[in-house]
Amino acid sequence: MVQSTQFPFEFLHADTKTQARRGRLHLPHGVVETPAFMPVGTQGTVKGLTIDQVAGTGAHILLGNTYHLSLRPGSELIAELGGLHRFMGWDKPILTDSGGFQIFSLGEMNKVTEDGATFKSHLDGSKIHLRPEDSIRIQEQLGSDIAMVLDHVIALPASDEAVLDASDRSVRWAQRCKAAAVRQDQAMFAIVQGGLNPNARVRCAEQLMEVGFDGYAVGGLSVGEPPPEMYRILDIVCPVLPTDQPRYLMGVGRPIDLVEGIARGIDMFDCVMPTRNGRNATAFTANGLLKMRNQSHASDDSPIEPDCHCLACKHSRAYIRHLFQAGEMLGPILLSIHNLTFYQRLMSSARSAIEEDHFEEFLNEQRTRLA
Amino acid sequence: MVQSTQFPFEFLHADTKTQARRGRLHLPHGVVETPAFMPVGTQGTVKGLTIDQVAGTGAHILLGNTYHLSLRPGSELIAELGGLHRFMGWDKPILTDSGGFQIFSLGEMNKVTEDGATFKSHLDGSKIHLRPEDSIRIQEQLGSDIAMVLDHVIALPASDEAVLDASDRSVRWAQRCKAAAVRQDQAMFAIVQGGLNPNARVRCAEQLMEVGFDGYAVGGLSVGEPPPEMYRILDIVCPVLPTDQPRYLMGVGRPIDLVEGIARGIDMFDCVMPTRNGRNATAFTANGLLKMRNQSHASDDSPIEPDCHCLACKHSRAYIRHLFQAGEMLGPILLSIHNLTFYQRLMSSARSAIEEDHFEEFLNEQRTRLA
Repeated sequence: MVQSTQFPFEFLHADTKTQARRGRLHLPHGVVETPAFMPVGTQGTVKGLTIDQVAGTGAHILLGNTYHLSLRPGSELIAELGGLHRFMGWDKPILTDSGGFQIFSLGEMNKVTEDGATFKSHLDGSKIHLRPEDSIRIQEQLGSDIAMVLDHVIALPASDEAVLDASDRSVRWAQRCKAAAVRQDQAMFAIVQGGLNPNARVRCAEQLMEVGFDGYAVGGLSVGEPPPEMYRILDIVCPVLPTDQPRYLMGVGRPIDLVEGIARGIDMFDCVMPTRNGRNATAFTANGLLKMRNQSHASDDSPIEPDCHCLACKHSRAYIRHLFQAGEMLGPILLSIHNLTFYQRLMSSARSAIEEDHFEEFLNEQRTRLA
Repeated sequence: MVQSTQFPFEFLHADTKTQARRGRLHLPHGVVETPAFMPVGTQGTVKGLTIDQVAGTGAHILLGNTYHLSLRPGSELIAELGGLHRFMGWDKPILTDSGGFQIFSLGEMNKVTEDGATFKSHLDGSKIHLRPEDSIRIQEQLGSDIAMVLDHVIALPASDEAVLDASDRSVRWAQRCKAAAVRQDQAMFAIVQGGLNPNARVRCAEQLMEVGFDGYAVGGLSVGEPPPEMYRILDIVCPVLPTDQPRYLMGVGRPIDLVEGIARGIDMFDCVMPTRNGRNATAFTANGLLKMRNQSHASDDSPIEPDCHCLACKHSRAYIRHLFQAGEMLGPILLSIHNLTFYQRLMSSARSAIEEDHFEEFLNEQRTRLA
């Protein structure tokens, strides 16, 4: 196993009763306290929030989407303008995905060959060929702190043969990504694929560790399978991964999924759920979801959560409801701020619980409240 | 002339070469430095901005819309929840309009009688009868610092007969508004109507001054007439109005219109232009308008205005353009912040120019730059 020391992952504390870990990841643009949640800034902006507001939610690191940014405004332009950090005005760490998941979910997939993926742009239908080397070149132009390898994502359920074909290809692409990297100031994380097949997952993880990366992600989950299936895969994959390197569960998820992921040894998460739900008038709270358009909030003078210090919780539920009923932008804005703040508070509470050796109680409490 | 001393208007300085005035209006929720621009918070929110961001633009006072708020969420509800200030989280002064202009411009007008206006709600088509007394009751429920009298607004051009009929009715309605007022902590401004007819304007102003109000607005302008027509009416109306009370030009306007209004003795303005243009990708600058979707900004690393300290101007024009091209909410948000900041800086510069006795030079400079 080749391990990088250029982007040290401090292992601060291990929970005694679960696999939860408290860590600190050192990156070129700063330190990420783990477990960490990364808000998604798909097109160079966390939807509806100024960069000050994003920082105010407590985020240490953002995710940017290579697929979207490479199509518009283009990674060459962003590089010319000083990179993604400068372009969006965020001076803390950024992780960029590789585009693999977006090609799978958004693009009209034409063909995957050993060379790369050929697909149609969702913007103008133009034909694009993306090889692993292209994804790394683009991510190097964006200048993120962490680049992800290009992986071959497939729809589930799939045959064992299709799963193994895609996960073996993902390993070969990961090797090519590593070989293509030029920047010294950018970490690279590999992505463990293998669908819901335990053998394929373990094989993929072991092969990627042979190549050696700065961190390991678990990909291809949260695509419609029942949550217990996802937890089962984490139970199998995490013990195989290096203990002294960060682990990232991609695109997950609901608050309870984050806590369950932490209990299984995951350090990093990203998801559009807090902002997407915020735009759709749904608030996350410690006791579950609130639909803010409901008539029950119409004259409710209390905030969404009394102990939340976010901007939204300076207002009444009645006001938030009014904003959504009136179609005002401020409704989605305030609820996105609240939901991101909720996710960051959940991560902060999880970190404290691990440090103070009562993560299992925290986990059980969240299972009761959130599940 | 009956003059209120409950809401003192300090007359700080008169320009020597124009009619420009520097004043300070004392209201229950604070002090307004004049000349002042009021951002419009139609539905209990300045579109797209948190209340902290509104304050950050330099606004001293907001405008709220009686018509919209009375239909949704309802003035009774806002009163129950502690009034409009508390509802929207703004603790500085608020002026509410009377609904007269919105009934004219938005509602399907059915009938104006001496008793009041009957119209259809633009939300659900329900039939509403609004008398002057109703408008005041609603504004007292909202709890604004300044209530406006209900006026009879008509489309221009109109016959002299129609103009006089409406402006005389506006005076009688203003009397009824004054008689209906109960709250002691709310100023009431009258509205001078009279279309583009100088005699009707002067007659209306004199009749309103006989009744006596805390301030005087000039209404029914900026409805499509050429700007010189508006300036001509101000040249006629302002000299008639009391020098020791505030004057408010309703719904105006472009930056140059504000400066021309100040030169004629106007103290207060409101307009949706900075936020509406912001949402439509148009930026105000000291040298005129910028269309931010233009290809010319695509790789421009400079801010909209180098000497502007707003959030938008921490970013490049290229980034702002990208946000609009990508359909991201942050584009309208940042440009609304910039445009409101621009309007407030213009007012601040005008106030300084009056204090320092060089307002005429300032006026001429703005005529060159903006017109």
